[in-house]
Order: sequence, then C-alpha cells, then structure tokens
Amino acid sequence: MDPERVKQQIYSLASFTASPGQGVTRLCFTPEEAQARDYISQCMREAGLTVYTDAAGNLFGRREGLDSAAPVVMFGSHIDSVRNGGMFDGIAGVVAALEVARTIGQKGLVTRHPIEICALTEEEGSRFGSGLYGSRAMVDGISPEELDRQDSAGIRKGEAMQAFGLDPEKIHEARRKRGDIKAFLELHIEQGPILQRSGKVIGIVDYIVGIRVFKIKVTGSADHAGTTPMNARHDALVGASLVVADVERIALEVGSHAVATVGSLHVKPGSFNVVPSTVEFTVDMRAPSNSALDLAEAKLSQTIERICRPRGVNYEIGRALSVDPVPTSPQIASILERHAVGLGLPHMHVNSGAGHDAMVMAKIAPIGLVFVPSAGGKSHSPDEWTEFEHIAAGADLMLKTVLELAEVVQ
Amino acid sequence: MDPERVKQQIYSLASFTASPGQGVTRLCFTPEEAQARDYISQCMREAGLTVYTDAAGNLFGRREGLDSAAPVVMFGSHIDSVRNGGMFDGIAGVVAALEVARTIGQKGLVTRHPIEICALTEEEGSRFGSGLYGSRAMVDGISPEELDRQDSAGIRKGEAMQAFGLDPEKIHEARRKRGDIKAFLELHIEQGPILQRSGKVIGIVDYIVGIRVFKIKVTGSADHAGTTPMNARHDALVGASLVVADVERIALEVGSHAVATVGSLHVKPGSFNVVPSTVEFTVDMRAPSNSALDLAEAKLSQTIERICRPRGVNYEIGRALSVDPVPTSPQIASILERHAVGLGLPHMHVNSGAGHDAMVMAKIAPIGLVFVPSAGGKSHSPDEWTEFEHIAAGADLMLKTVLELAEVVQ
Repeated sequence: MDPERVKQQIYSLASFTASPGQGVTRLCFTPEEAQARDYISQCMREAGLTVYTDAAGNLFGRREGLDSAAPVVMFGSHIDSVRNGGMFDGIAGVVAALEVARTIGQKGLVTRHPIEICALTEEEGSRFGSGLYGSRAMVDGISPEELDRQDSAGIRKGEAMQAFGLDPEKIHEARRKRGDIKAFLELHIEQGPILQRSGKVIGIVDYIVGIRVFKIKVTGSADHAGTTPMNARHDALVGASLVVADVERIALEVGSHAVATVGSLHVKPGSFNVVPSTVEFTVDMRAPSNSALDLAEAKLSQTIERICRPRGVNYEIGRALSVDPVPTSPQIASILERHAVGLGLPHMHVNSGAGHDAMVMAKIAPIGLVFVPSAGGKSHSPDEWTEFEHIAAGADLMLKTVLELAEVVQ
Repeated sequence: MDPERVKQQIYSLASFTASPGQGVTRLCFTPEEAQARDYISQCMREAGLTVYTDAAGNLFGRREGLDSAAPVVMFGSHIDSVRNGGMFDGIAGVVAALEVARTIGQKGLVTRHPIEICALTEEEGSRFGSGLYGSRAMVDGISPEELDRQDSAGIRKGEAMQAFGLDPEKIHEARRKRGDIKAFLELHIEQGPILQRSGKVIGIVDYIVGIRVFKIKVTGSADHAGTTPMNARHDALVGASLVVADVERIALEVGSHAVATVGSLHVKPGSFNVVPSTVEFTVDMRAPSNSALDLAEAKLSQTIERICRPRGVNYEIGRALSVDPVPTSPQIASILERHAVGLGLPHMHVNSGAGHDAMVMAKIAPIGLVFVPSAGGKSHSPDEWTEFEHIAAGADLMLKTVLELAEVVQ
C-alpha cells in the first residue's frame, strides 16, 4: 500500500467539512457527506466495484465472488464525523478499505466469496443523536420514532433522508440476516494512547468494552454560605465531590482495564455565596467484562451510601445506559495476528474503550477490529492524528485477512 | 411593643412584591419599592417623624433632639429584597425602627440627640448588582460607572433613579461625614441557625466576618472516557473534587467560626463520555479575623498545589473579592447586653456571616447590630421566617438602647 495515496485521500475527504479551519464537521445527510459519498463512490468505481446505497443511506462497493450467493466478506468504517472532529475517525477505515479493494482489483484477484466495502452513515450520532445508526439499520432495524428525531434546526431525520433521495418508509430493506455476512472487519484509529505508548502499529481488539452510565442526583440543603456553620450544613457538592474522587479509586480497585469517568456535573443553585442544594452528575463506567462492571457498580452504590448518609444528604442513582461487552471473533483475531506476524508489524492485543459499528455487526456476523495508533490518544478534535504509513500498514493487514476470509482462488 | 402590630406591618409590606405567591421580589426603584416607601413614609408621619429622602434614594424619618446640631442616632435597615426572597430580610429592622419611633412619639419622650430611622435602598444588589448601595452612597460615594450599570432589561441605574424623581448628578449630596452620626444601629434577621439552635431571642453581633472569594481554574486534558486508561488521565474534575472536599476540612481546621464554601462549579467540556479538561469554581471563605482568613487562604493554596501537581493538572487562583472583618462598637454591644439582661431576653454574642449596611456605616460611626432568630436558618427564600414576638423583643431592646444613646431627658 502507498502511504502517499492514503494521505491524499484522507486530505481530500477532510476538505468535505462544514467547519473549514476548525476540524472536520461532516454530519449525516448534509452537503458535506454528499461530497464525501461522491468522492468515495468514484474511488470505488475506479477499484472496479459496483456501487450501491442501501435503504438507510449506507454506501457499499461490491466485488463479486465466484459464488455470488455465498456470504459476503464486508469491511470498512463510517463516513460521518463529530462536530469539529479530526480527519481520521471513521475515514481511516474507509480509505484502508478502498486501498484493499483497489489492490485486489489491480491484481485481478478472484475470491470465492463476494467482497463489499462500506462507508456507513451516522456512527457518531452528532446530528440526530442516533449513534451507530447505519449499522443498527442493518442489524436491528430503526424505529419510526427514531426517524422523527430532529436536528438542532428542527429537521426530522426522515426528512433529511428524503432530501438525500432515500425513502424512510423502506428503511427495513437495509436489514441483513445472520448468514448474509461471512465476516465484518473494521479498521479504526485507536482514539487512545496505548498503541503509541507501547510502540505498536497494530492493535488487535479482543473486546469492545461494556458501558454503564449512571445519572446521580445528590440533594442537600441550600443555605447561606456566610451564616451557616460548617456543622449545620448538608452540602450537596461536598458529598458529590467525595463521590467523584472515589469513582477514580473504584476504577483502579476493579482493575481489569476498567475505567470510570465523571464527565458532566451541574451544581444548583450555583451562586458563590450559597451552599449547594443539588448536584447532578454522570458516572461512565467501562470494562471488558460484565463481572468487572457488576463489581464497579456495587462499589459505586456502596461509596455513595457511605458518603451521603452521615452528611444528611439524599441521593438517587439511575442507570442511563447499559451496553454489554462485545467479544470479537477469536478465529478472526488469530488470522489477523498470524498476518501481522507475517508482515512484521509490531502488534498487541487491546480492548476497545469506545463503541464501533463492528460491535453492532457482531450480532449477526463474526467481527474483526483493528486499531492503528492515535498520536497522544487524541480524538474527536482537530488535533487527532494518525501516521499515514500506519494506516497503510493496517490496510496491508486487512488485505491479507480479507483474501483469506474470502478464499482467494488465484 | 405589640407583636400583632409588627405582624400586620410585615404582612402589609410583603404585599408589595413583583412575585405574588412566590415570595417577596421588591427591587430598588420599582413600583413595588415605591409602594413600600409610601407605606413606610405614612407610618413615619404617624409616629411624628419628619420624612425625607436623600439624594441616593434612602428614606429617613427624623425626630428632632433638644440639640438639633448634635450627632444623630440612626437606626433601621433596608427596604429592598432579593428575587423571590422572604418577608423579613431588611423589613424586620425597618418595622422594629418604626415601632421604636412610634413608642417614643406616643410617650412624648425628648432626647438630646436627634433620632433618625432609615429604610435604605438596594442593600441586596439584586437589580443592578450594586449591593450595599444605599449605605455606600452615604459613606463612600457612588461612581458614575456604577450609575451606568444596567438591569436585566437594559435600564441604567441612573435612569431608574430619575424615574423615581432623583437626580443622579446630585448623588454626592447623600454623603454623611464622620461626626454626623453618633451611632448606627441595625436589627436584622440572623439568616443562620445559631440563635434558634441555642434557644436565644437576641444575638449581639461582635464581628461582621471578613470575606475572601477566590476563583479557581483547574486545567487538565480532555480525553475519551472509554479509551484513556486511568493512569494516562489528567482529569480536571477529579483534581477539583479533591480540592472541594478539602475546602470543608480547611474551614474545620481553621476553626474560630471560619466557614468555607464552594457554591459554583462548572465543568468543561461537560459530556458524560469525555474526561473533563477544565473546571472553574469559587471558594468563599469567611472568618471574624484576618489572621483566620490568612491561615485559611494559605491552607487553600497548599492543598491545591498538593492535589494538582502530582496529577499533572494546572491551576490558577484569583482573588475575586476581599472584605476585611468589621468589629461592631464594644461600647454599644455592652449597652445592648445590659438592656437585654434588664429586659430578661435570652441572648448571646454572635458573629455576622453576611454583610449588612451597618458594616459600611462602621467607617464613619460606631455601630451596633442585633440579630433575631431565623427559623431553620433559612433566608433569601419564601421559607424565611422569624417570630413576630422576637422582632417585637428586638424592638424593645432597640428602644432602650436608642434612648440611652440619644440621651433621653424626660
């Protein structure tokens, strides 16, 4: 693979942004996404693929196999971005897939299984809040309620699809059955610092971590900051702060690659001279096993009770999100590992702390997920960076793996 | 004094609110304040006082002394309220002063010094953010810039004064000189829980506490909550939370009635799935001595450095406000105490954790400050409550003290 061509494609796709000079903003069903789709479609055709769009708006390029009825080997990633994101999130995997397809086409390789590369839409959910929409449309189906969701301008998702030439009434046609897809492969930037710190080029993902998000409300008493003695207070923020500090300790105690984060915290009434009466905050816990998540959740409940009760502050804990960990296919992981060794690529096994379309596809097909390093672990930011030779190396690995899974015949 | 008449006046004044059914909202230079001024002026005249308004908008009722050139004994409180506040904050002292004046008038008592009762305006600062405006106009003078401040509707303070028949150009005429006022006395609700908890009716204030408010900014790194290992984080919120918890400990360690509060705290970027990069929060520290404030401030600096440095998060500490503690007059306090004993009123010495107009007046005159109990310590809320017989008892104490200070002759 040619890192220069990877670079040229990444920069071309980065130009399709609604925020030039301030990172990539390419939301689903926008003119910027349309430009990116035209560009990718053209690349697909140049690679000899047959281009089509499914009923949800996902873009595919297909190369027939000797057995056109055999399950397809599918690989790619997503086309959309967050607001003011980077050039690599999603697109790195799409460009790697284009490189794989171009190489197969140039070499005139024939496989028993058909091959499809994909550029899925609204993985980020930054326009309609419908994350993983493209893959969910293929696997779970999309409810009419979700198509009624509005963006910040009040445009419904269904309307936006119609403006893109899609018929929301037919979205069920996007669904694939178990057995349709022999394997789903995705190359993605790591979005974390582990590969770079470890000096590796390739991360072979074993688990996409499970996530539990809690919304916690701590309620004390709003009192005058000057006239209320320390021992007469029921300060919701002091209670919440002790919990926040303990959330870090809990993740470290649980170990097993568990992480826990309080990312959002709001204080009421919020005046410098009033003891806080209410604090609402989130706790985001992730781990590669449900047993680790169960342990972390139990510790969280205990610590909140232990902190709040003696302070005379009340609390409510609600679960806002719960997603089970998803294992990748051990068979595909071992194929990836064998080819990484063969190609001499420094590699390691990792977990994915973020969700990906592959996680959804795992419900109907074996999946493989490959990470390439993110400089400084930065993502969802204009500072996001991945070396082009690392993406090219990842494409080399994908090529070997796809050819094996699709059963290359010559 | 008659608690029934106190009650009737308090309820009458509470009816002059812009938020009927949702507490008292009587901001300065509004129709509600005008109604209250008319009511109080009428009460003053009924008590035989000569009514006048100074150039700042403060309302006075004067009873001449035998020596009309002698320094005046002044007492009262403020007429304005916070938004959706209570019936007692400020008004309790105005009504007590009216009761004292009415009693002196009814008994035909003659004093050597003139007596003036006052209803000062914009103590709370809830309309123009100019707290203690009425007393500052009498003591410090008001800058043209302050008169240019706008309320939420864009009306400048100077304009609002003109609509009230005042000439902002003449505001300097409100100033009083040292020597004009023999003593300034204020009765106010405690706004804290100490008197009620101690079973006392009267608090004789020794110090109005000093205040130092700090704005602290903690800066870490915004990272993905799923992909960033715990040991690779620079979480601004965990750092800030440890500081918040320590602020409570610092106040307890400093003792000497010190209190410390984090009332406002903002997290950025504020997404549940992003490690916080920036937290900005306030620390409000109050104590009756500068040495206690110095100690608390030093401990705060140490604790922030100790917490932030090993976590690789940066911090900035800015002082947003610094007000020295203000002692009341020990002579007046001892007169108050002697009369409290004489009247058989359960009393104690306390500090004031909140600022009051008396604090400003202390620059040009000896001050006395008397607290009456606040049920549950609640204030700045429709839940604010003080027993009418406690206000009446406070008025009894004010009467005795005023007559002694004004040198009653028959």
